Amino acid sequence: MNVAVIGLGLIGGSLTQALAAAGHRVVGFDADPATRATARTAAARARTDARWQIGGSVRAAIDGADLVVLSVPLPALPGVVAELRGFTGLVTDVTSVKVPVLELIGDLTYVGGHPMAGKETSGFRAAEPGLFDGCAWVLCLESGTSTADWLMLAELVTALGARVVPATAADHDRAVAAVSHVPHLLAAALTAAAADDPLATALAAGSFRDGTRVAATRPELIAAMCGGNAAAVGPALDRVLASLGELRAALADDDPVSTLRRLVAPASAARSAWPPVPGEEAELPARSDVLLRLGRVGGWITAVDRDGRKVTALRPKRTETDRNSS
Amino acid sequence: MNVAVIGLGLIGGSLTQALAAAGHRVVGFDADPATRATARTAAARARTDARWQIGGSVRAAIDGADLVVLSVPLPALPGVVAELRGFTGLVTDVTSVKVPVLELIGDLTYVGGHPMAGKETSGFRAAEPGLFDGCAWVLCLESGTSTADWLMLAELVTALGARVVPATAADHDRAVAAVSHVPHLLAAALTAAAADDPLATALAAGSFRDGTRVAATRPELIAAMCGGNAAAVGPALDRVLASLGELRAALADDDPVSTLRRLVAPASAARSAWPPVPGEEAELPARSDVLLRLGRVGGWITAVDRDGRKVTALRPKRTETDRNSS
Repeated sequence: MNVAVIGLGLIGGSLTQALAAAGHRVVGFDADPATRATARTAAARARTDARWQIGGSVRAAIDGADLVVLSVPLPALPGVVAELRGFTGLVTDVTSVKVPVLELIGDLTYVGGHPMAGKETSGFRAAEPGLFDGCAWVLCLESGTSTADWLMLAELVTALGARVVPATAADHDRAVAAVSHVPHLLAAALTAAAADDPLATALAAGSFRDGTRVAATRPELIAAMCGGNAAAVGPALDRVLASLGELRAALADDDPVSTLRRLVAPASAARSAWPPVPGEEAELPARSDVLLRLGRVGGWITAVDRDGRKVTALRPKRTETDRNSS
Repeated sequence: MNVAVIGLGLIGGSLTQALAAAGHRVVGFDADPATRATARTAAARARTDARWQIGGSVRAAIDGADLVVLSVPLPALPGVVAELRGFTGLVTDVTSVKVPVLELIGDLTYVGGHPMAGKETSGFRAAEPGLFDGCAWVLCLESGTSTADWLMLAELVTALGARVVPATAADHDRAVAAVSHVPHLLAAALTAAAADDPLATALAAGSFRDGTRVAATRPELIAAMCGGNAAAVGPALDRVLASLGELRAALADDDPVSTLRRLVAPASAARSAWPPVPGEEAELPARSDVLLRLGRVGGWITAVDRDGRKVTALRPKRTETDRNSS
């Protein structure tokens, strides 16, 4: 397939190399001339069986492409989308929020995507073709999505070793708010509450280290992530605040130890059962309703049979705890 | 020195072995007969140059001791303290809260302690003599504390490789509330808010994993820790809630990205500067006011000269950020 990758940061750069290694013809582009120069040097050194190129403009990169992958930050997306006017192939993206992208994508044929891959480092120099191996990669299914387009992307992405998770844009944004965006806000608040007390920071050990790790993320990245998904992060933070409010009240209780033990017990059991263990593999018909149900129960796709319109799926194994509580 | 260690869990068991290896005569005791049996077997196998014994009762263990270390959980302390009636040597403990112990210790000659050492595993079988190497160990200085007693303990503990942090019981409880107890409550609330959504738990990656790790701690331990220090954990949680309230308001702002960036920037800088880097070593007079000031600025003691009544101290290095913000 002919693929254009617009934006050559950690994700776009890794994807360019991974797709080339998988046998696709890939042309990359980045708005930053220095990044393009670095990428051109890397492209010239690429293995002959995994060659890719760097275009001089968005128009040049997408010329002849069947698929365009947008891997620029959210604030840069409207500008790039404007340059895609008239493009008739399929467009996907790797942005960490999905409803805002759906709203600005206009008439393009689009399937939203989000690989849950990241590292402490960013930029093209940190890129590596193996980045997506084993990672969860959300591919969005809306009412207007063509199942054929969706399956084509799912096939492409599973071939890179990723687990494809089907979800609507709204469900995606709600889920990542809870497990990715809110943790950054909690880490920032926990750091802020201890930072002015040198005795506290001297005594801080494992629980502080882990609970605050992502607070060291660059402020503009935390702000773009959480602010770009504010409509979902707000309610997710409200749920955490409601739990913390209960815990705060328990501390003022006559018997705080008993009340706290009762309140934290479900979370202790839930965290001990995470990450979920996959159950038996199953073949499922590639129908939008079936796929979305799979995603909602925490399942994912490991392989695609486009001709047979079937997918190979895994679901989390139901545990004793689930059975007792349901 | 003759030392009795009452309570042979992870900390007490490790301390028994570490003190014996350092040349002290140690007698351990645990209220649980099975733990005593396990410890006796281990004692019989101990190296001849690091021998220790297991007593049959608290009274037998403390007979002839210069120092008693209480390493039982907080709820068991009043019972053990009652059995120490008439003991005239020095008493210390390793409990994770200090004001409540000070309140129940009565007329005993007491210096409170808290080694910030822990592992995922607990109990005597997890004990190891190297557990305290490099860990921070708070030793409390109150208005009535004998500096000679305090220095004797500091010498004992630095010889095990620990960094001794001087603090009042109240300052200790406030500091560990912020960096150890509150993180457990945040982890529980974060887990609870995502646990019922299988899509969210399937997409959860590094920020969820680290932000919730300590939520898997046994509920009774979280409850005992936080509930036993409720007077300090409440206000520490209030500070975090105030920060989260600001972040919640920013999400509803006209320009959430700019507001969030401004709000999270100080925490990002603070977390990037943690853990603090020690500056130059200094010799300090072993005076209560000097020692407490050292602890308050985040410093610690690495060696004790009891005859010269001096200590070797390290303080965190002041960074550019500190200088600019002060």
